[in-house]
Amino acid sequence: MAANPLRDPRDRRLPRVAGPCVLVLFGVTGDLAKRKLLPAIYDLGNRGLLPPGFSLVGFARRDWAHEDFAQVTYEAVKEHARTPFRDEVWKQLSEGIHFCPGEFGDDGAFDVLAMMLKEIDETRGTGGNYAFYLSVPPKFFPLVIEQLKRTNLAKGPEGSWRRVVIEKPFGHDLKSAQELNAITSAVFPESSVFRIDHYLGKETVQNILALRFANTLYEPIWNRGYVDHVQITMAEDIGIGGRAGYYDGIGAARDVIQNHLLQLLALVAMEDPTSFDADALRREKEKVLRAVKLPADLATGTARGQYTRGWQGGEPVVGYLEEQGISSDSATETYAAVKLEVANRRWAGVPFYLRTGKRLSRRMTEVAVVFQRAPHLPFSKDDTEILGHNALVIRVQPDEGITVRFGSKVPGTAMEVRDVNMDFAYGESFMESSPEAYERLLLDVLIGDPPLFPHQREVELSWQILDPIEEFWASEGKPEGYESGSWGPASADAMLARDGRAWRRL
Amino acid sequence: MAANPLRDPRDRRLPRVAGPCVLVLFGVTGDLAKRKLLPAIYDLGNRGLLPPGFSLVGFARRDWAHEDFAQVTYEAVKEHARTPFRDEVWKQLSEGIHFCPGEFGDDGAFDVLAMMLKEIDETRGTGGNYAFYLSVPPKFFPLVIEQLKRTNLAKGPEGSWRRVVIEKPFGHDLKSAQELNAITSAVFPESSVFRIDHYLGKETVQNILALRFANTLYEPIWNRGYVDHVQITMAEDIGIGGRAGYYDGIGAARDVIQNHLLQLLALVAMEDPTSFDADALRREKEKVLRAVKLPADLATGTARGQYTRGWQGGEPVVGYLEEQGISSDSATETYAAVKLEVANRRWAGVPFYLRTGKRLSRRMTEVAVVFQRAPHLPFSKDDTEILGHNALVIRVQPDEGITVRFGSKVPGTAMEVRDVNMDFAYGESFMESSPEAYERLLLDVLIGDPPLFPHQREVELSWQILDPIEEFWASEGKPEGYESGSWGPASADAMLARDGRAWRRL
Repeated sequence: MAANPLRDPRDRRLPRVAGPCVLVLFGVTGDLAKRKLLPAIYDLGNRGLLPPGFSLVGFARRDWAHEDFAQVTYEAVKEHARTPFRDEVWKQLSEGIHFCPGEFGDDGAFDVLAMMLKEIDETRGTGGNYAFYLSVPPKFFPLVIEQLKRTNLAKGPEGSWRRVVIEKPFGHDLKSAQELNAITSAVFPESSVFRIDHYLGKETVQNILALRFANTLYEPIWNRGYVDHVQITMAEDIGIGGRAGYYDGIGAARDVIQNHLLQLLALVAMEDPTSFDADALRREKEKVLRAVKLPADLATGTARGQYTRGWQGGEPVVGYLEEQGISSDSATETYAAVKLEVANRRWAGVPFYLRTGKRLSRRMTEVAVVFQRAPHLPFSKDDTEILGHNALVIRVQPDEGITVRFGSKVPGTAMEVRDVNMDFAYGESFMESSPEAYERLLLDVLIGDPPLFPHQREVELSWQILDPIEEFWASEGKPEGYESGSWGPASADAMLARDGRAWRRL
Repeated sequence: MAANPLRDPRDRRLPRVAGPCVLVLFGVTGDLAKRKLLPAIYDLGNRGLLPPGFSLVGFARRDWAHEDFAQVTYEAVKEHARTPFRDEVWKQLSEGIHFCPGEFGDDGAFDVLAMMLKEIDETRGTGGNYAFYLSVPPKFFPLVIEQLKRTNLAKGPEGSWRRVVIEKPFGHDLKSAQELNAITSAVFPESSVFRIDHYLGKETVQNILALRFANTLYEPIWNRGYVDHVQITMAEDIGIGGRAGYYDGIGAARDVIQNHLLQLLALVAMEDPTSFDADALRREKEKVLRAVKLPADLATGTARGQYTRGWQGGEPVVGYLEEQGISSDSATETYAAVKLEVANRRWAGVPFYLRTGKRLSRRMTEVAVVFQRAPHLPFSKDDTEILGHNALVIRVQPDEGITVRFGSKVPGTAMEVRDVNMDFAYGESFMESSPEAYERLLLDVLIGDPPLFPHQREVELSWQILDPIEEFWASEGKPEGYESGSWGPASADAMLARDGRAWRRL
C-alpha cells in the first residue's frame, strides 16, 4: 500500500497488529531463541498481536519432527514468557509451528524449506509473507542469504513481502561491516533488512524520545547552555560466561559501545525528528553519529581494562585470562570508556563519557545528563557546600525509571540546600506490563515498521568512530587490569578526574 | 555590629542561634499562643537555639502568678510541641517564665512590666534586648504601642535592641494599613517591625527560593516562553468556626489573598535576588507586586462565593449565613478567585490564577506552574490524545513536596504517551523534622533576621491590588452561593473556562 504523500505523516498510525505471515527462525537451538525469541512470539500471540494463521518455522541441525520443535517452544514459553500461560493461545500458536531439519550448506534442506513455506501459505493463508530471522553467528550469514536467494525465497510474488533480520555483531570494523552488508544487500533491498539492536526495543530507551519530544520541560535545557556533561553507562556484573569464543578478540568496545551505547548517545543528542518515521528518525541519529568527534589524544581520552580475579556476590571469581577458552596472553578489553564530543551547535564542548564493562560492581545501564551548576547562588557559601550538580538520569535497566536530582532546602531554621531525588518508576506508574524488547522488535519486523532498527549507514558511522580507537589500543599492547567487583581500571577514573569530574557511583 | 561593606554579603551567614533576650507576649490566653507560639518557644529551646538566660514574659488580663503562666505554657508544650519533651529543657525554659497581669489601658500594669524586664535583665543577663509580640486584635495595637512608648520600652540603651512583632490583618484596605503603620512607625523604626505572615515561615514556601535559585533545571523555563499559566490555591475544608467576629466583613480575599497568596505569587514570579538579605529579597518581591495588573474586566476576571449548607467529612454542615454570629444578609465572601498578570518582560501574558475558600472539598495549599504544550509533537495524534500539560507543583501543605507531571511512553508496542508524576516528598527525603513556621519566624525575630517578614511597602502594594477588587465586589451585591464540600462557585470555573483552562482537581 503506497503512502499518500499529501497525508500528514504524523497521522499515519500503522495498525500495530501483524498481518498473515511466517517467521522463519534460523538458530532455534541457541540461547537467544530459547530465552527471548520463542517466549516473545507467544507473548505477542497472547496480547492478540499475531494473526490467526501466523506460522513459525524452525530451522536447525536437529533430527526433530514438528512436534519436537513445538515441545521445545512450549518449554521455552513456560519458562520465560512474560504473560500468563493460556491454553487457547498456545493451541492456536502450536498449530502453526513447523520444523525444517538441515544444515546451512545443505541445498536439499532449503528446497524442503521452500516447499514447506509454500504449503503453509496454502493451508494457513500466510500469503507468501516471510520474515527470516538469522539468529546465527555472522560467519553463516553469507551461506544462509545465498540459500534464500537460490531458492527464490528472498523475493516474493507481487503483494507479498520478504524480510531478513540480523543480529549484531554487524562486523568487527568498518570494512567487515561493509562486506557483510554487501552480501545481504545483494539479495535483500535495504528496506527489507532489519538489524536488531535489542536496546532500541527497550521501553526505557524508547522513552528517551517521549521524554524529550512529548514534553516542554526538558528540551529547553537539553544543550550546551545548561548541560555540563553526559554519562552513558552499561555495567555488567557477570564475566564472559560461556562466550569466550565470541568475545575474545572482540572486547567491550565492539560488543557494547559500537551498538548499544552509540545508539543511546544518538537518541540523547539528536535534534527532534519531524516524525518517528524510520527515515526521519534515522536521519537525525545519523547526523549525531556523523558529528561525533574523537578526543584529540586517545591516550587520555579513552581507557580500557581487563578484569582480574576478585569477589562478586560473595564468591571468588577468576580473572579474564583464567577464563576457560581464553589464552593467557589475550589483550582483549573487558572494560572500555571513551570521551566523545558531538561537534554541533547544540553540544559543542559537552563531553559524552561512555563506559561499559564486565565484572563490575553491579548490573546497571543508565544515561545521566548532568547539568551545570546554577550560574549564581544567592545563598551563603556554607549553605550550598554539599550541593552537587542537577542531573536527569534515565535508568534503562534494572529498576526502570527516571530520577531527577536537584537541590532542596533542608528542613530547619537556616537556608541550607542539599541534593534530593525526585523519582519516577515505571513499575509504580503503569498498570501495563512492559513488553520484552524482542517482543516489540519482532512485531515491528512482522508489521514492517523499521524506525527502531539501525540503518546500515548508522552501523558504518559507528565503526568509523570506533576503528581509530581500536587501532590505537592495538598499538598500545595489553589493557590495564581491574579487580572483579570493582568499578573498572584506574585510568578510567583518571580520564574524568583530568576534566574535574567523576563517574557516577552506581 | 555594623556590617563590613567590603565583605561579600553571601558570606555573611548569621549565627542562627538567638542571643540573650526577653520575649514579651501580649495575648497569651489566645488560641495562637497556646497552639503555636508557646510550643514553638519550647521547640526552639529543645533544638538548642535559645540562650541560657532566655526569658518569656506573658501579659494578659488574668489574675495569674508566674507559676500559673508557666503551667499554661507547660500544658501547651505538652500538647502541641513538635519535639520530644525533655525535663532539662523545660526546667531551663520555665525558670525564665514570668507573668505580668493587666489590661492594655492600665498604665500601672505597664510600669510593672517595665520594672519586671529590668529585673530580668539583672537576674538573667538578657541585656535589655526585648521582642514584643502583639498577638492581639489590631484595635489594641495603638494602645499597646503607646504604652511601650510611654514606658520607654520601645527604645533600649545603646547596644541593646527592641523589636515589635505584629500579626495580620495589617489593616483591611490600603488606608487602614497606612494608619496602622503610622502608629507603629511613630514608635518603632521599620527595621524593628516584624510583620508575621506565617506562610513565609513554612519550609515548602522557603523551598520555592531554593528550588528556583539553587538549581539549573527550572529557571530556564520559568518564564512566558514556556509557562502557560500559574495556579495558586489555598483551599480549606473547615468553615469559619468561632471566628465570625473577625471574619465577617473581611472575607476570603482580605484574609488570604492579600497576604499568603500574593506573597506566594511574589516568590514564584520574582527575579533572582543578589542575596537573601532582607533588602535584596524584599526589593524583588516588591517589584513583582508593583508589576501586578488587574484584569481589565473585574466581572469576568474575578469570582467570589459564599458557602451554603452541604456535607463535609460525612457530616451535614450549615451555610455561612446560618453560622453563629453571622447576620443572615451578610455579603462576605468565603471564596475568592482572581486572575492577575505580572506585567513585566518575564511574565507578560501569563495569567496567575489565585483562589482560596472555606468549606471546599479538601484542605490543600499548592502552587502549580503549568507549562505550555510541546511546540511540535512528532507522534501520531492518537498517541498523544490524553497527554496534558507539563506541570511543576509545589505542595505547600499538607503532604509537603514537589510533583512534576510530564509525558512518558506507555509500556507497549506503540509510542503512546501519557502523563505520569515524578515525586519528591519532604517526609521521605529528610531525616530532619520540619520546624513549625512559627519556630522559624520567632527565631528570626530574636536573631533580628528580617527576610521572611513582609515590609510595609509589600503590605501596601498588596492592598493596592486588592482594593479595586473589593470595591467592585461591594458594588455588585451578594456573592454567589456554593455548596459546602464542593470546589467553589460556578463563576470561578467559568472564569478559567473562558480562557480555555480549568482549575486543577485537588
